[in-house]
Amino acid sequence: MIAYDTTLRVRYGETDQMGYVYYGKYAEYFEVGRVELIRSIGLSYKSIEEQGIWMPVADLVVKYRKPGRYDDLLTIRTMVRELPRSSFFTEYEIYNESQELLVTGSVRLAFFHAERVVPVRVPAFILEAVEKQWPQQP
Amino acid sequence: MIAYDTTLRVRYGETDQMGYVYYGKYAEYFEVGRVELIRSIGLSYKSIEEQGIWMPVADLVVKYRKPGRYDDLLTIRTMVRELPRSSFFTEYEIYNESQELLVTGSVRLAFFHAERVVPVRVPAFILEAVEKQWPQQP
Amino acid sequence: MIAYDTTLRVRYGETDQMGYVYYGKYAEYFEVGRVELIRSIGLSYKSIEEQGIWMPVADLVVKYRKPGRYDDLLTIRTMVRELPRSSFFTEYEIYNESQELLVTGSVRLAFFHAERVVPVRVPAFILEAVEKQWPQQP
Amino acid sequence: MIAYDTTLRVRYGETDQMGYVYYGKYAEYFEVGRVELIRSIGLSYKSIEEQGIWMPVADLVVKYRKPGRYDDLLTIRTMVRELPRSSFFTEYEIYNESQELLVTGSVRLAFFHAERVVPVRVPAFILEAVEKQWPQQP
Repeated sequence: MIAYDTTLRVRYGETDQMGYVYYGKYAEYFEVGRVELIRSIGLSYKSIEEQGIWMPVADLVVKYRKPGRYDDLLTIRTMVRELPRSSFFTEYEIYNESQELLVTGSVRLAFFHAERVVPVRVPAFILEAVEKQWPQQP
Repeated sequence: MIAYDTTLRVRYGETDQMGYVYYGKYAEYFEVGRVELIRSIGLSYKSIEEQGIWMPVADLVVKYRKPGRYDDLLTIRTMVRELPRSSFFTEYEIYNESQELLVTGSVRLAFFHAERVVPVRVPAFILEAVEKQWPQQP
Repeated sequence: MIAYDTTLRVRYGETDQMGYVYYGKYAEYFEVGRVELIRSIGLSYKSIEEQGIWMPVADLVVKYRKPGRYDDLLTIRTMVRELPRSSFFTEYEIYNESQELLVTGSVRLAFFHAERVVPVRVPAFILEAVEKQWPQQP
Repeated sequence: MIAYDTTLRVRYGETDQMGYVYYGKYAEYFEVGRVELIRSIGLSYKSIEEQGIWMPVADLVVKYRKPGRYDDLLTIRTMVRELPRSSFFTEYEIYNESQELLVTGSVRLAFFHAERVVPVRVPAFILEAVEKQWPQQP
């Protein structure tokens, strides 16, 4: 497993009139976590796109346990438990400053050849970057 | 089952640099569909809140089949297949103008007493409004 | 002058914890008004882009008089008082259902050659479409 | 004058299909800058609200010079050149990592008594916090 923690602060415009983070915002928070995990293994999502690979989302699951609130400093934990193959499965946990678990979820990304707009298997340079971080089996 | 179709047009700010609707936006589109379904059965989400009931989201699932694009006129089909009890389960299908199915998904809403901020069972006035639309069994 | 009215309903995710439409959202509402004005004169912003013209925003002004609220059915009035030349100046008024003026503002758009990414004067097909709607001077 | 710099990274969902940061997003970036400036002088916008003061936006101006792009690490410089009186006038400059000035703008905030929803003059605790940072005149 690879895991990476990043933090972000809830913006006013991300709350709704219940005073909570709007439920649709967590997809964006997951994206922030995922992008920083990818950066932490020596890649960048931007450079992946520049190499002609798109990673559109295939499915999203979010489970809401407690509300995020304005000005909360959230920790986004992004986890990868499976090596990417035909898709890239990422999992998430979001905590507030009191270490309360607010939200869990997952995002499955596909790999697309950006120009031909067709699905492809994980490109070698991405698989290698993930494998390099992967805990060795004894 | 109750079903209700509503339409919306994709805004420029809802696309991302792939030229697709950003994946997090569909939660907002589901909300539009849900709010209009609720209006179609003689309630309004606004008045539900004014009666002291909040309906925070418990979980969200989105499956992305094809991308939505800028200026697409989307049809949001919202479906209720179960009477609300301790939660309200809603399902969604989003089509473009060519009747292509772009996205499917579901949202489970809880019922909360807004002032005490505790979960409650479905309020009678909501259950009755749903039941009034429910197809009679022979 | 050309003017065009379009309506939209405020979404839950567009409110903030004051219970008002978030102030940054009005830029998106102006965009909706502008896109529909352009459609009303026989063009579409989408087809303008497909013809290789981008219209990035040069400046934005918004004046907030009264708050928009969740579920308000807003009328976006978009006005063009000057023929487009090196830029396209558009003005806005947003009303709620009680005909209260909530917001006024303006957006100046540039014209860009999308491929060379350089500013250009208004393309002939856009100017002609606007002029065709322009009230004749006696 | 008080000035404060904060940074944020452009999210994928904040871009549009031109590949630029959507023009309406800068209002949210200004908010991030403003909130951090307020925090830097020993207040927090959250605690201001908890003390019964709302600061709704009265007007917004944004001038777009160059586009922000996905994954840019932006610096938001927030500046206060006038002591708050009946309103609070804040100015902004946004730079990318190459120190290019992308956007300038301003936001005028009102002060409201949250419960009575009426405008008030700047509360003493806010004025004092600003004055404490204000460069002394000789």
